[in-house]
Amino acid sequence: MSKRECKRMSAAVPVAGNKFIIVGGASLVGSATAAGLLDAGASEVVLFDNFSMGSEGAIAHIRDNPRLKLVRGDVMRLPDLLRAMEGCQGALLLAAYMTLNMDRDPWGGLDVNIRGVQNALEAARANGVKKVVFASSNAVYGYGPGVKGDLVETTPFHSVGAPPAAILYGATKIIGEQLCRDYKRRFGLDYVVLRYSTVYGERQHYRAANALYIIETWDKVKKGERPQVYGDGSETKHFVYVGDLARANRMAFEADATDVAVNTSGPKPVTTLELVRMVTRLAGKDIEPEFVGDTPGKVRLTSGGAFRIAHEEAFNAIGWKPEVQMEEGLRRLMAWIESNEGRTT
Amino acid sequence: MSKRECKRMSAAVPVAGNKFIIVGGASLVGSATAAGLLDAGASEVVLFDNFSMGSEGAIAHIRDNPRLKLVRGDVMRLPDLLRAMEGCQGALLLAAYMTLNMDRDPWGGLDVNIRGVQNALEAARANGVKKVVFASSNAVYGYGPGVKGDLVETTPFHSVGAPPAAILYGATKIIGEQLCRDYKRRFGLDYVVLRYSTVYGERQHYRAANALYIIETWDKVKKGERPQVYGDGSETKHFVYVGDLARANRMAFEADATDVAVNTSGPKPVTTLELVRMVTRLAGKDIEPEFVGDTPGKVRLTSGGAFRIAHEEAFNAIGWKPEVQMEEGLRRLMAWIESNEGRTT
Repeated sequence: MSKRECKRMSAAVPVAGNKFIIVGGASLVGSATAAGLLDAGASEVVLFDNFSMGSEGAIAHIRDNPRLKLVRGDVMRLPDLLRAMEGCQGALLLAAYMTLNMDRDPWGGLDVNIRGVQNALEAARANGVKKVVFASSNAVYGYGPGVKGDLVETTPFHSVGAPPAAILYGATKIIGEQLCRDYKRRFGLDYVVLRYSTVYGERQHYRAANALYIIETWDKVKKGERPQVYGDGSETKHFVYVGDLARANRMAFEADATDVAVNTSGPKPVTTLELVRMVTRLAGKDIEPEFVGDTPGKVRLTSGGAFRIAHEEAFNAIGWKPEVQMEEGLRRLMAWIESNEGRTT
Repeated sequence: MSKRECKRMSAAVPVAGNKFIIVGGASLVGSATAAGLLDAGASEVVLFDNFSMGSEGAIAHIRDNPRLKLVRGDVMRLPDLLRAMEGCQGALLLAAYMTLNMDRDPWGGLDVNIRGVQNALEAARANGVKKVVFASSNAVYGYGPGVKGDLVETTPFHSVGAPPAAILYGATKIIGEQLCRDYKRRFGLDYVVLRYSTVYGERQHYRAANALYIIETWDKVKKGERPQVYGDGSETKHFVYVGDLARANRMAFEADATDVAVNTSGPKPVTTLELVRMVTRLAGKDIEPEFVGDTPGKVRLTSGGAFRIAHEEAFNAIGWKPEVQMEEGLRRLMAWIESNEGRTT
């Protein structure tokens, strides 16, 4: 086979010179990825959003780029997507209700996370988009005491003991992944599924249950108050820095890989107590945390034991590994919060 | 607490004197359950179906009962359900795409198995229905090599190696269960989830991937041909007889139990080879099966090892256990196939 033929058979979509759409783009991950694609020479990046959750603030830093196009549209309206995807070589699908919103409005959440994905895949197929990157989640491994040890891509979905909204959210991500598989099988649409762990970083929004905790802790410590730790603080979280994820999205387009789902998590997990101590140190304070019981009625996503979301497969598939350590990522997030931009978003 | 108060706090819905609706009623399980509810003195049983999969033949044996009401309607139309559920104390939710249809039409399957359940629950809530029985499936434990040993109600969902349609189907059943939990939590709507294993019995339809195998085998053996066994015949199936399931549905209404999900499987699993030998014996033949390879492209739901779907929790929750052994159930199914009714359905 000639080099030329090899190239044609690859599912790689180079960023330079190509047009991309980010569905649900006016968001933490969307805006960071758009900036990355523009930096890498994308001819155009379309940010598609209905602004029900996305915000103008999240995209203020890239708004004036002439290669950026903002499209107001809704994933529940196929025509909106069909038009917005015209001429795109790559589509990143981010639009979704997360657990807190799923709890408030399961009807809307199931619509957006399932029909919204179907509409986006259908629009991609109809427009001859070369590759889709679908933002899945470590929620496909579920919640509760069954979630422990190394979470690898073959780990099953645990749901015993989790609140309905969390299970619904995880199940919609499982469905989204399978819809990608189904479009590949039926229509040859190339895709990479990235299973994001909990994202944090500059332009952090206030809707994610776990990432919000970082900001709450910072706000308390800055005021000289004791930060709160739920339970004994041994609960594991595994975050990933938004810049690392933006790079993962770009690399997923550029890689030969297709028809694959991999974890994208940060360098290593932290316990809640470690996290609170890191944030306290960053604030230059010497305050001991207060250990409090669980708040009844609050949707909290707990796991039973220590776990780690393994990201080795992502390196094998798309050559990606996380680079930003938690301390450094937190430092950047806090600097942003204290900056003018963070305070006015 | 007085006896009267105790009674009021129970989630039991006695069958005698009460009105029931079976959504997706023109079906194997629906018609058998309707017959059981009518026998137990239900004042009325509404069979709600759009007849896209349900058939007139499936309900021929109960059609003339004056307490049976047939309503043509669609679970995708909330008004249809709102009207049909008026005055009902109990609602059995059966309407669903199974895996084969999910493969043919994932768009329709996700609609019916998710929005259809939401519509049915909403109609039940709006009409003050006392209890919902939701037909889930052992598909919530998934497929592939991870599915082995005793499958109990806390077993996670395995999906590695399964075809998209099977995973989509299982995920929709997980979602349906959680929607029931959510309606209980938000609105106090009592429910019992029964996780059916593969159903077989008189008025067997021709859409279920696994149960169909019984009829295919019977048809071959009757003609004197060698029945086919895929692989080495060691693959496990765990069937349940339709009459046992009809009784489980009735008992789920009558039990105090609410907010619970339990398995309803037959007395014990069989291997494919055992099953084929049973059917051959019933036909009075002495023919050795033919071992054939897997058929590529055919949706087959395989598991990696021996498993058993445990039904002990169903006894604890609603007092049910299966009564009909596989040999006896097969004898009844074959007798029905050979009867006039079976041949003309």
